[in-house]
Amino acid sequence: MPTQTFPTTTYLSAPDMVRLVQRKGLSACVAGIAARIEQDFLRWQCFDKSPRLACHSKEGVIELMPIADASRFAFKVVNGHPGNTLIGLPTVMAFGVLCDVDTGAPRLLSELTITTAIRTAAVSAVAARRLARPDSQRMAIIGNGAQSEFQALAFRDLLGIKELTLFDVDPAASTKLAANLHGQGLQVRICASTAEAVRGADIVTTLTADKTMATIITPEMVEPGMHFNAVGGDCPGKTELHRGVLEVADVFVEYEPQTRIEGDIQQMPADFAVTELWRVLAGLAPGRTSAQQVTVFDSVGFALEDYSALVWLADTAAELGIGDVVELVAQSADPKNLFDVLKLKAPAAPGTPRNALAPSPFKGEGWGEGSMLAH
Amino acid sequence: MPTQTFPTTTYLSAPDMVRLVQRKGLSACVAGIAARIEQDFLRWQCFDKSPRLACHSKEGVIELMPIADASRFAFKVVNGHPGNTLIGLPTVMAFGVLCDVDTGAPRLLSELTITTAIRTAAVSAVAARRLARPDSQRMAIIGNGAQSEFQALAFRDLLGIKELTLFDVDPAASTKLAANLHGQGLQVRICASTAEAVRGADIVTTLTADKTMATIITPEMVEPGMHFNAVGGDCPGKTELHRGVLEVADVFVEYEPQTRIEGDIQQMPADFAVTELWRVLAGLAPGRTSAQQVTVFDSVGFALEDYSALVWLADTAAELGIGDVVELVAQSADPKNLFDVLKLKAPAAPGTPRNALAPSPFKGEGWGEGSMLAH
Repeated sequence: MPTQTFPTTTYLSAPDMVRLVQRKGLSACVAGIAARIEQDFLRWQCFDKSPRLACHSKEGVIELMPIADASRFAFKVVNGHPGNTLIGLPTVMAFGVLCDVDTGAPRLLSELTITTAIRTAAVSAVAARRLARPDSQRMAIIGNGAQSEFQALAFRDLLGIKELTLFDVDPAASTKLAANLHGQGLQVRICASTAEAVRGADIVTTLTADKTMATIITPEMVEPGMHFNAVGGDCPGKTELHRGVLEVADVFVEYEPQTRIEGDIQQMPADFAVTELWRVLAGLAPGRTSAQQVTVFDSVGFALEDYSALVWLADTAAELGIGDVVELVAQSADPKNLFDVLKLKAPAAPGTPRNALAPSPFKGEGWGEGSMLAH
Repeated sequence: MPTQTFPTTTYLSAPDMVRLVQRKGLSACVAGIAARIEQDFLRWQCFDKSPRLACHSKEGVIELMPIADASRFAFKVVNGHPGNTLIGLPTVMAFGVLCDVDTGAPRLLSELTITTAIRTAAVSAVAARRLARPDSQRMAIIGNGAQSEFQALAFRDLLGIKELTLFDVDPAASTKLAANLHGQGLQVRICASTAEAVRGADIVTTLTADKTMATIITPEMVEPGMHFNAVGGDCPGKTELHRGVLEVADVFVEYEPQTRIEGDIQQMPADFAVTELWRVLAGLAPGRTSAQQVTVFDSVGFALEDYSALVWLADTAAELGIGDVVELVAQSADPKNLFDVLKLKAPAAPGTPRNALAPSPFKGEGWGEGSMLAH
């Protein structure tokens, strides 16, 4: 029987991911994942895609996000529990897995809480490079929680954003964001309202988490040429933009079948026109066409972005020697002999030889007790 | 802000599972998981159920099997790659996760390759206790691969099976099974064909793995009163029973919407009558009604069985002190401050104080560089 080395599974814990980001630098991580996302979005037709599977409860949602191409199967598990921060827990926690398609073997098991923040910021920046005005300098960030620093720095690095206006219903969140951005080369101003933060911004990023049909951005806030990076609305019943904002904008989405369910466009009729981002990246559809155009990236988070992040993580962890090999799968010398890994000894009956696995003598009528003799 | 202790995640590796089975004993594991499955099937209406999500390739399938009740969300990842054994890898590899529904936090990450073999045998036995003749003594096992020892021992323990007839197209698999069962109190005979193994059996268990529309059991093999425990057919295009067998039998399934897609009944019209096992367990539908009746348990494997197994594993691992606590989720003191876990130092500009997170002086026009002052 030709055997291959048993494929190993690498485990990247949250502390491993922290080490990885510290060694590469956050900017390099964002840029690396953004590049990988662009590359994978250009292979859109190679992926077996489906809307994520959501399990809703009154407190929040737990989602499975699978995707595969011909060589790798990836999935992420992620929750969204807006009330978690009230008891000291993160709103979003995530981890994910890469498997080989040809054998099904799991090859990478990784934390994705930190990674989700990075890849979400990365895809926002990838979209904004096509959808925001090239001369954009100022971004408003509405919702200053766990995701906000990553968006701020991704837009600084990949869009050249220089100024930020911040608003959060929790002033401590804005203070925390401003403090974390200190010394990062961004001019930051905390505002007293969403309207104040949005006024005059080139890009408006919304990162709110309430699981209620919320209206963070109303039509009177919209100015010609603005790009809205709407990230927080990502669940049935969880929206951020008034429908009037969508009506005056050109709307871009990740994967239309999922965004119809989860995005801000859940408020709109099923035939409301949207453009999938990959078509813009591939040059099949225009992105921004004029300086006056209002654009919306109705981002909900798509499994392909996690695939890209997981592949980038696997490569980078290998390059840096970070992570541990774990025995997630039982390995038996003979794959048809899983029982053997248990190394269970049969209870020795009186007079039974010590080697309980030796063939027993054949006993009349063709019956042996565990006989190895075939008939 | 009221905080709760960050919920820990326990990791059970394959070696941990081996230790757990060695310390509890395989019989106790099978019985424990079978009892938990019965208990959870009686709470059928409490679960949010869906057919599993399958990702098919030419080599096999990778599946996600999610389920939840009000307190726990569980899922398993499992593959089925019939060609794997040719390269020394297992056909089936699996692992799974339990999360708290109220917060989304992952609490248990466990190997499920060994566990799947145990829970599959357990649910087969749970079904056979209602569907096989109570005086059943002899079982045929067709397909003598990784799952076969577990079925043999579960039926010995929970059904009182005393004799086994074995057949596999790979004679080495039968020899291996017979050797592993030596000293386990079972009379074992290896046969030269499926027909020979099935003849006179009370229960027929099929555990074949070919991903082709196979016909392992044909109508002329069926004898009055037989119970068929059809486990190997579990994918579109992967069957074991000739439709003529199904036509003369009363057919029982785990979760009808999934079995219509994956089970042997995929060959039958959509209105072919089947009974869900939980209804038999709950006394809402009859199981076996006469000694002459032919019964089929068209088992494909349902997420609820993995939920039951994961909950039993969590309890048993805690009882035995097996498993490790892992940091799968990044833990920041302030859940809105995920960025803080990265402990990234801002590049110190000339003249910048060492403590880069201290508030910077307010700079004219309302703009501070990372100012902590709100307006």
